[in-house]
Amino acid sequence: METLHVQTDTKQYPVLIGNKIITDLSPLIEELKPAVTSVLILSDETVGALYMDKAVESLKGLNQPVHTFVVPGGDGEKSFSNYYNSLTFALEKGLDRNSLIVALGGGMIGDLAGFVAGTYMRGIRFIQLPTTLLAHDSAVGGKTGINHPLGKNMVGVFHQPEAVFYSIDFLDSLPLPEIRSGFAEVIKHALIQDEEFYDYLKGEISDLSDIPPEKLSYILKKGISIKAKVVSQDEKEKGLRAILNFGHTLGHAIESESGYGTISHGDAVAIGMRFALQLSEELGDTNLHYKEISNWLKHFNYPSVPSKLDAERLLGAMKRDKKSTSGRVKMVLLEAIGQPYVKEVEDCTLLNALKKFLMTDKEK
Amino acid sequence: METLHVQTDTKQYPVLIGNKIITDLSPLIEELKPAVTSVLILSDETVGALYMDKAVESLKGLNQPVHTFVVPGGDGEKSFSNYYNSLTFALEKGLDRNSLIVALGGGMIGDLAGFVAGTYMRGIRFIQLPTTLLAHDSAVGGKTGINHPLGKNMVGVFHQPEAVFYSIDFLDSLPLPEIRSGFAEVIKHALIQDEEFYDYLKGEISDLSDIPPEKLSYILKKGISIKAKVVSQDEKEKGLRAILNFGHTLGHAIESESGYGTISHGDAVAIGMRFALQLSEELGDTNLHYKEISNWLKHFNYPSVPSKLDAERLLGAMKRDKKSTSGRVKMVLLEAIGQPYVKEVEDCTLLNALKKFLMTDKEK
Repeated sequence: METLHVQTDTKQYPVLIGNKIITDLSPLIEELKPAVTSVLILSDETVGALYMDKAVESLKGLNQPVHTFVVPGGDGEKSFSNYYNSLTFALEKGLDRNSLIVALGGGMIGDLAGFVAGTYMRGIRFIQLPTTLLAHDSAVGGKTGINHPLGKNMVGVFHQPEAVFYSIDFLDSLPLPEIRSGFAEVIKHALIQDEEFYDYLKGEISDLSDIPPEKLSYILKKGISIKAKVVSQDEKEKGLRAILNFGHTLGHAIESESGYGTISHGDAVAIGMRFALQLSEELGDTNLHYKEISNWLKHFNYPSVPSKLDAERLLGAMKRDKKSTSGRVKMVLLEAIGQPYVKEVEDCTLLNALKKFLMTDKEK
Repeated sequence: METLHVQTDTKQYPVLIGNKIITDLSPLIEELKPAVTSVLILSDETVGALYMDKAVESLKGLNQPVHTFVVPGGDGEKSFSNYYNSLTFALEKGLDRNSLIVALGGGMIGDLAGFVAGTYMRGIRFIQLPTTLLAHDSAVGGKTGINHPLGKNMVGVFHQPEAVFYSIDFLDSLPLPEIRSGFAEVIKHALIQDEEFYDYLKGEISDLSDIPPEKLSYILKKGISIKAKVVSQDEKEKGLRAILNFGHTLGHAIESESGYGTISHGDAVAIGMRFALQLSEELGDTNLHYKEISNWLKHFNYPSVPSKLDAERLLGAMKRDKKSTSGRVKMVLLEAIGQPYVKEVEDCTLLNALKKFLMTDKEK
């Protein structure tokens, strides 16, 4: 078991990376002060079927009530109704200010459970038990929230967990598309902060269906360290933290315009990163080897832009991005690998760049 | 115009107390950095009809879009649907992270608008323009939230405003029951922190329908100062801040069991304070002149416990209070006027005390 530490203005908390952590939850949770009075485990149908019983069994050692609530799976279910239903369940079960919410699942459950925890009685404690590679990103940093039909993650709070328990064995059962989705955020972390790590990924990872455990553990640690470093410098996204949105401005627009759940988050971000790289070269007069990176991404079967989406529609969705102010889009671009910057880009510039990108990138 | 300052761990902000502030909003808001990109004024039907046009006119000086959204009035409307509808409106109007929400109304609007601001894109800025005496309490301190059918204020966040603009002339048109409701919180502030202020209130305020402006201004400043002092020491209610709930444990139970909006918040708190005083004498072996204070409160026509409520039902609702942990009720009691403490009280003790209280206090 290895431990990383996340330090923000409001809290310090550990990220444990290890194996079979789910069988040993009680001793970890017993360390929390004040003592936990009851636990609510939130999960989705898929993860719940695999791990809920184990989690409940493991928490018996607390000798406190343990409740479970399962919401339907998929990012589309980070909805107001699931938020409301989770709160109702928590109230029915009498959760109090010393209760603990456990998010058992991927990023969807982490975001939803974190928002429930962040707003139940104006905030109670929660712990992240990420079960996907993608959640290496979302479980760290305290961003929580739900979707609104008019935009992804538009409603939420910053609410840091008490701890993140990352059990690598959870990834064994993960289908390839979900590994690919999570790996996009690993690549993002490399591209924005660490050229050496990017070189490592290019050299060492060629088959996403067969990443050896020690390499998986390494890339997780690197990814989480980069995320933790950025978040520690800017918890509330006043400045620097925006660089974590590299690839996300177009990525979110594609997710939202395709209908949530139609395309995976990482697949959409991979498209967004390709676009951001192309635009970085165009606006920055720099060579980022766009073609080479683009081909590398395609080698992992990251998809192209869905055929039904056009440049005008995507621009409209990008303008609703949370980083936009006064309707002007802010893009995260790269000067070089590892050197990001944020730039406000004119609508017409963006529209032309999108059109150019779609000419070569669109689904056939 | 007088200015008080609220200092919490996360923010320092001014509370301006003056007259006709609504005609002069733009210069005050122009001081905010970064500059405000658009404004959404949230109000209820009653207040909106009186002051919305003036507020919009006053904000023209910003030369930025000003949007207005009116929700139905009454504390019962601090609902999920009004929360969701306000967020939807904000998204439709393209509010961004540099936008400002203005809460124009009483505590209901302040709590709702604060929660919308606290969760829209994970938190944007807001300003309180309280229009009631009751809101002298709720507008200061950053508690925001909405009701759930299973409990009042059960969902919310701590989100401090950028400023509170308290325009005393708003109170001119306030009906007597609303003055009485707000005055209960003034009395509470005196009882928990300032015996001298309590003596002042007893000596100087005899008719709530005719409080001279200079006295009103004085009691507002005293009430806000006490609130600000407590909040500055314990923003997130980890300890001391709980004393502000004096009278609220039973008060909230009465509100919730009567159906929100049936009895005013202050009327319910006045009953709750009488009960807390009686229990303080009983458990603390101290003389708080319960009879005298109780008669003083009755002189202002504060009501008795609604006849349909019995002790068992009230106890059940009190156990759902946010201060309760492991189902044990915590009461704020007084050792003496100005000297509060928090005590966990056994169910059977509470039940007997409630029965005794209801014998003399219940509506005929």
